[in-house]
Amino acid sequence: MNIKNKNLGELEELCADIRQRIIDVVSINGGHFSSTLGAVELTVAMHKVFDVQKDPFIFDVSHQCYPHKLLTGRWEEFSTIRQFEGLSGFTKPKESDADYFVAGHSSTSISLAVGAAKAKKLKKEASIPVVMIGDGSMTAGMVYEALNELGDIKLPVVIILNDNEMSIAKPIGSISKYLSKILAGRFYQKLRERIDKSIIQKLPEGATYLAKKIEESMKLITPGIIFEEMGVDYIGPIDGHNLEEIIETLEIAKSINKPVIVHAKTVKGKGYEIAEGQHEQWHGVGPFNVETGEFKKKASAKSATAVFADALIELATKYENVVGVTAAMPSGTGIDKLMEKFPDRFWDVAIAEQHAITSMAAMAKEGFKPFVTIYSTFLQRGYDQIIHDVCIMGLPVVFAIDRAGIVGNDGETHQGVFDISYLRFLPNMVLFAPRDNETLNKAIEFSYTLNKPCAIRYPRGAFAQLDFEPSPFELGKAEVLKEGTSNKLFIGYGAGVSRAYKTEVLHKEDIAIVDLRFVKPIDSELLLKLSEKYDDWYIFSDSQKQGGVASAILEMLNENNISKVNVTSFEYNDIFIQHGDTKKVEEKLELLPEQLVNKVK
Amino acid sequence: MNIKNKNLGELEELCADIRQRIIDVVSINGGHFSSTLGAVELTVAMHKVFDVQKDPFIFDVSHQCYPHKLLTGRWEEFSTIRQFEGLSGFTKPKESDADYFVAGHSSTSISLAVGAAKAKKLKKEASIPVVMIGDGSMTAGMVYEALNELGDIKLPVVIILNDNEMSIAKPIGSISKYLSKILAGRFYQKLRERIDKSIIQKLPEGATYLAKKIEESMKLITPGIIFEEMGVDYIGPIDGHNLEEIIETLEIAKSINKPVIVHAKTVKGKGYEIAEGQHEQWHGVGPFNVETGEFKKKASAKSATAVFADALIELATKYENVVGVTAAMPSGTGIDKLMEKFPDRFWDVAIAEQHAITSMAAMAKEGFKPFVTIYSTFLQRGYDQIIHDVCIMGLPVVFAIDRAGIVGNDGETHQGVFDISYLRFLPNMVLFAPRDNETLNKAIEFSYTLNKPCAIRYPRGAFAQLDFEPSPFELGKAEVLKEGTSNKLFIGYGAGVSRAYKTEVLHKEDIAIVDLRFVKPIDSELLLKLSEKYDDWYIFSDSQKQGGVASAILEMLNENNISKVNVTSFEYNDIFIQHGDTKKVEEKLELLPEQLVNKVK
Repeated sequence: MNIKNKNLGELEELCADIRQRIIDVVSINGGHFSSTLGAVELTVAMHKVFDVQKDPFIFDVSHQCYPHKLLTGRWEEFSTIRQFEGLSGFTKPKESDADYFVAGHSSTSISLAVGAAKAKKLKKEASIPVVMIGDGSMTAGMVYEALNELGDIKLPVVIILNDNEMSIAKPIGSISKYLSKILAGRFYQKLRERIDKSIIQKLPEGATYLAKKIEESMKLITPGIIFEEMGVDYIGPIDGHNLEEIIETLEIAKSINKPVIVHAKTVKGKGYEIAEGQHEQWHGVGPFNVETGEFKKKASAKSATAVFADALIELATKYENVVGVTAAMPSGTGIDKLMEKFPDRFWDVAIAEQHAITSMAAMAKEGFKPFVTIYSTFLQRGYDQIIHDVCIMGLPVVFAIDRAGIVGNDGETHQGVFDISYLRFLPNMVLFAPRDNETLNKAIEFSYTLNKPCAIRYPRGAFAQLDFEPSPFELGKAEVLKEGTSNKLFIGYGAGVSRAYKTEVLHKEDIAIVDLRFVKPIDSELLLKLSEKYDDWYIFSDSQKQGGVASAILEMLNENNISKVNVTSFEYNDIFIQHGDTKKVEEKLELLPEQLVNKVK
Repeated sequence: MNIKNKNLGELEELCADIRQRIIDVVSINGGHFSSTLGAVELTVAMHKVFDVQKDPFIFDVSHQCYPHKLLTGRWEEFSTIRQFEGLSGFTKPKESDADYFVAGHSSTSISLAVGAAKAKKLKKEASIPVVMIGDGSMTAGMVYEALNELGDIKLPVVIILNDNEMSIAKPIGSISKYLSKILAGRFYQKLRERIDKSIIQKLPEGATYLAKKIEESMKLITPGIIFEEMGVDYIGPIDGHNLEEIIETLEIAKSINKPVIVHAKTVKGKGYEIAEGQHEQWHGVGPFNVETGEFKKKASAKSATAVFADALIELATKYENVVGVTAAMPSGTGIDKLMEKFPDRFWDVAIAEQHAITSMAAMAKEGFKPFVTIYSTFLQRGYDQIIHDVCIMGLPVVFAIDRAGIVGNDGETHQGVFDISYLRFLPNMVLFAPRDNETLNKAIEFSYTLNKPCAIRYPRGAFAQLDFEPSPFELGKAEVLKEGTSNKLFIGYGAGVSRAYKTEVLHKEDIAIVDLRFVKPIDSELLLKLSEKYDDWYIFSDSQKQGGVASAILEMLNENNISKVNVTSFEYNDIFIQHGDTKKVEEKLELLPEQLVNKVK
């Protein structure tokens, strides 16, 4: 689509068409909705002013990239977004050259722009990296690391700060207050309070000329002073839905040949009235009725997240020292309920995983029992803090890892497949997992009694429910769910237990099933005993094969000089797993019980 | 030591005594020197104004904690600092209750203070967390994540910003420029330029009263406006060596019951003239002659770092697209030489590992070959960026991992033992290692040809040199260094190869030795062939046992259904390894060749 030749009226029509297309498709497929609707004019203006063939277009998190996809040859294909083998919900270079980078985690965009700007300079290419970043992404420290270098080297980068005064949920923290003070014009007001009183009130009567001059000079102190002091120019705030204003401003920003932030005020959900200005509810959505805004929810089983939240409420009610944190995912992790019920003990610290973990380490030191509730994929963001601030100190922080395993439509950037492999070898760490709702309750109870760092993992959506009696957790103890008559043994971990169970049901032999429960410390006593009876072991777990559960079992067998056992891992192979309906993805990976039963010789 | 009752004169004497003790001990033991000398008055004032029994004293990185150790019952024991089984060079609660947290990595302190302040509030304890943080630590994003919450919740925390206008090396980035502008009083000057010209010059002749008022009102706009806008009060700059001024200021800070930054200007190396105001050279030192300032260097072999730097210079000279980055460790990683020779292609981006990695990912996308040169322990800080920005994109970024294995006197926070375990299962990642100087050269050459993410690791200090001919690296190919007549096989990885060799020499049998070279992809073809001849394998590698090299070999054997091989790992057990002379530490871990030979049955 060539939008370079379109006039303002045509561009405005185009914006309306884009919005309609997004509403039509997302109401069927589900997807990121309100942030992408709010970014339509900004994106159209980016394409009008910059050249996507030449200038790197960098979308932070990239959940707002739908208008960009529609503008770059994917209008028809857009109907497949987030579907299995369809378009990704995020930018993806394999899909189109117009997509500069994969992104799904926040706050990487300015760093990418710095790298791109350095490269363009060395290659002597006249090209300006253009970033679109939301106010919610401005809380993560990585942004400041990037600004610290950018403001120093001063290479040309245009940063469009798409400020809808929201994170995914409510905005958190002083940076967000600062930004909204600017949007509301309260920055001037505060400056005026600081200066006016002492001067203007003392001016001789009638010295209005002077008063006006003082007023004007104050405006020379930009509302974006934090950015200016960091060496990055600031323009704004502008209306992020006024195409003419945006285009004019971007032309200026493009021309000044320095790093510059264009601060645009937008409305999340713009153009779909029911969603306008709404918080978390319309950020990422399932299919909905366009007329009424009603979600077409299937009556589904209670999610593991909800079970976790209820269990934690019970624990926090019983024990006053239970506290917890989320990094900008209150409803995603179920912590919203706890923040409501215990506003003094549960916090949303914004997108700030490093800070979330280390601040909870200090609370543990002070005798509290902190729960860091976080998605598996985002825990990667605080990795050193787990090691340096929690594990070395041996502090009883509980990592409650949500979205463990395959997450479905978000795809490769969000898969929760690595956590076991990257936590398993950390000294002092205890790793365990529930197999269903009842054992999740038991796991939370147990975590409270443990005076060490630990991590519990549970999947996106609902656990398959099992009929086995839920016994309490005991440190390092696995549980035999059933003995069998064949020489085979199915070992399940977490949600893998139900997959083991379903596979056993389909198999003609009577196979023993163990719920491993702890991958660290592993129950070598029980497993060694079982090796006397069963020597053909199959491992079921939603985790990376390398370094995962089977790997832990192999290490244990080797340390105990057991060579008679043959181990087969049904964990994930060494690839990044693509997006799509979880069942279809698992089918492609050949991990459905009906496929696994054929692999069990 | 009760310093509460001491008067100013006595406290100043105490400061002199502390300095002398530090000079005496560090000139013998080596250790962190100039930063700790610069913090003497600030630390004494902390102890005078606050109560270490009640108020958490939080030292960022904690390399400046020597005065604190001397003030809290460790005056005599201080002579053992950084020695095997002696005092740690960092704060350590196991050593003293006065040490609140272990710290060795930077920029965690404000997060700890936020957690502590939340805890104190819930416990209704009248207590104020006091942080000491250097200007160098202010570049890492984690600090802003913490300020973002602190400025919002506004719990009382006193942050002493110990500003010696230096990081470990030269200060980098716009934040550092901002801070030094404040110290030099240039912030007022800039404001004056912005305001004065338009107003003061237009004032009627003789209106000096008004001019003065305007000047005063400007001073109401604090030089710490970035912090103030983030919701944290700012006091400063003050003279960080004027004990009276510091004590008075800390009393004020203590009284205001809000978060506040006290910005103190200090001189690195204060009190030891030869080191005063020096950069990197006097930050961490070995033994030196107090009179002359000469370092008592043993003529030692060329370090792996130096070999790496020379190899990279050669590569960068040959190929214009070779670029690289360090996160505040220019001389530690050898990148200082490259920054000097290729100032446009090698950068120090300050303590900002996340940004370092992601910005280099963008350069790789643009066709460059970036080297992220970093210590193993600090790579943990950019873990998600490795996965999300490098591996998913499959970009040819080279992670040149220095200080892999045991690092000696810095101890548990700095051991480079986890990298293989946390990188091995990442899709697209290639892991290999040189065994000595010659193969390090070959590894760098090979890395250039590889169009995928990869990581090379090498130890602190010098490689032991081996006599084997250095053949070029070939993707996934191990190398048989010698065949043997016994059924044993020694498999070495990286520096583990020379340990395997030394152990073989001590053994009475003739044992085969393989240099594994690649832990990913692993040379299963060769290893399977070797399994026909040798079935008692011993793995030598400076890495964590769980998830490490032996684990990779076990996975490979299992996938190929080989059960006849018995594997023994001589990697590190599941503990945090303490500080001290590397040989003594290895002896305690029973990893010296003369110990290993006895373990080889």
